Amino acid sequence: MKKLSTLFFLLITTLSYAQVKTLAEKLGYSKTDKLLIIHADDIGLSHSENVATISSMTDGFVNSTSIMMPCSWSTEVGEIIKDHPNLDIGVHITLTNEWFNYKWGPMAGDVPGLAGPDGFMYPDCASVAKNASPEEVEKEMRAQIEAAIRIGIKPTHLDSHMGCVFYGRPEYVASYLKLAKEYGFPAMVVPQMVDTIIKANPSLFKGIDVDNLPVIDQVVSASPTAYDERGMEGYYTDLMNNLSPGITALLIHVAYDNDEMKAVTVRHPYWNSPWRQADYDFFTSGQGRKLIIDNNIKLVTWREIGAIN
Amino acid sequence: MKKLSTLFFLLITTLSYAQVKTLAEKLGYSKTDKLLIIHADDIGLSHSENVATISSMTDGFVNSTSIMMPCSWSTEVGEIIKDHPNLDIGVHITLTNEWFNYKWGPMAGDVPGLAGPDGFMYPDCASVAKNASPEEVEKEMRAQIEAAIRIGIKPTHLDSHMGCVFYGRPEYVASYLKLAKEYGFPAMVVPQMVDTIIKANPSLFKGIDVDNLPVIDQVVSASPTAYDERGMEGYYTDLMNNLSPGITALLIHVAYDNDEMKAVTVRHPYWNSPWRQADYDFFTSGQGRKLIIDNNIKLVTWREIGAIN
Repeated sequence: MKKLSTLFFLLITTLSYAQVKTLAEKLGYSKTDKLLIIHADDIGLSHSENVATISSMTDGFVNSTSIMMPCSWSTEVGEIIKDHPNLDIGVHITLTNEWFNYKWGPMAGDVPGLAGPDGFMYPDCASVAKNASPEEVEKEMRAQIEAAIRIGIKPTHLDSHMGCVFYGRPEYVASYLKLAKEYGFPAMVVPQMVDTIIKANPSLFKGIDVDNLPVIDQVVSASPTAYDERGMEGYYTDLMNNLSPGITALLIHVAYDNDEMKAVTVRHPYWNSPWRQADYDFFTSGQGRKLIIDNNIKLVTWREIGAIN
Repeated sequence: MKKLSTLFFLLITTLSYAQVKTLAEKLGYSKTDKLLIIHADDIGLSHSENVATISSMTDGFVNSTSIMMPCSWSTEVGEIIKDHPNLDIGVHITLTNEWFNYKWGPMAGDVPGLAGPDGFMYPDCASVAKNASPEEVEKEMRAQIEAAIRIGIKPTHLDSHMGCVFYGRPEYVASYLKLAKEYGFPAMVVPQMVDTIIKANPSLFKGIDVDNLPVIDQVVSASPTAYDERGMEGYYTDLMNNLSPGITALLIHVAYDNDEMKAVTVRHPYWNSPWRQADYDFFTSGQGRKLIIDNNIKLVTWREIGAIN
């Protein structure tokens, strides 16, 4: 009897093991392949950001972006993509407004908890978490998705500006996953979120098939320290030369260092106008392209992840 | 008895006549003086508009402006005026969003009637009048005034972007005058409004001393025809050489014809980026300044009008 049960246990384990494919494998790659999404956050933010991001995708090798719908310039993206209908564009759920002199408010008509005393969004995630109810955040997220669709975008994914969906309240994440499921595209989820938010609050995530979420292996992005110490070229060169197997989402920010962008990012020492120009320069450079090839890095998109059955 | 009543009538008429000073006279000028407010609408609209408008006031001879608070760049004006605390700046009540690719929404948290299906303001006054209740418009006007005060502006007056307060519902005008009275600054009123809106709807304007409103004599602005046929220089030269006595508000629009402004005004043949550059050029030119002097035109500001007892 003991032998039989051991055999049964081994059979089940083997079957389960066979079924648990990594996301990379589901995409048709092996577990050891190095897969990379080069994702430019923040399209829609400004005219400079729009034009540079599109150029980084059509002239460079950025292969995914996500749009900040509440910003003044989001509508221009709808116009630009008429000429580029197949770009990989998600909705960058935007609940904050981090710049000193350049502002935007929420898109949903009656979400006062998302607007600060100046009528625009709060500058940081903590203020959002303190003031915005889960119902308001869900309403705003839906308004942003609907607005993106209305300007002609077919969203390939959902993610979160400054991570405020993830760093806010667990209810925000529940709405985020619910909306992604409802609209039929993946939402960016990193492994840490699964344990600390989703599995920690099971009652909020009923109806979400946690084990089949398209959880990418890691999300990386240049830090202020990396920018100061190594510069963008140094940081990205190291990253490409040492990329881990699995799926990595590399979050970058692309704009031209011009009058408009200098004014948008004034008094911000990081993620500012020259930072975004440096990202543009690297991801349109031959040297950057060569690093991808030399390291046998495969570029994958959110659209491909969304197409997994 | 007839003689006595005639005498009494004459006395009353004379007294009344003596009391009815024109707005020019209340400012200390004579009825025949030519007084001009050179008013740059739309500061706050964009970075380009902000920098050019301030330059037209500090380097040129524009002497008044009004701010579009719901626009992304309004906050920057609060920063710029720290160095120019005495500029004449009103609140340009903004209920519409007329550009194709550059957007903004209402500032008040729960005024859905002021947002179109894309979450931003409607492009025209008719849509506002159709969708926005008087309560919503008053709430939004108050939010814009409060937001201006919060960024350090001491508003000198109130006026209306695209005239949508005037071309909307008479209740909007009632709120506009009520708020101006409450906050203690003048609201731009032109003679036509007095008869067609205010006196035509007396029940709405209770509490407003219609006969003592600071009604300016005329509001003029370059038209598309003038721009096409005479150009800005020709139009303004004719205007200065033929200015009527009394107070004229000349509404202009000042920005630099740069990448940002070209993109803001894309596909608009008028009030667009080169139009605004032409306004900047004229109102910072020696030739324009000479026309003011040669025609003995006195420049007056809204602050002076607001200071009339």
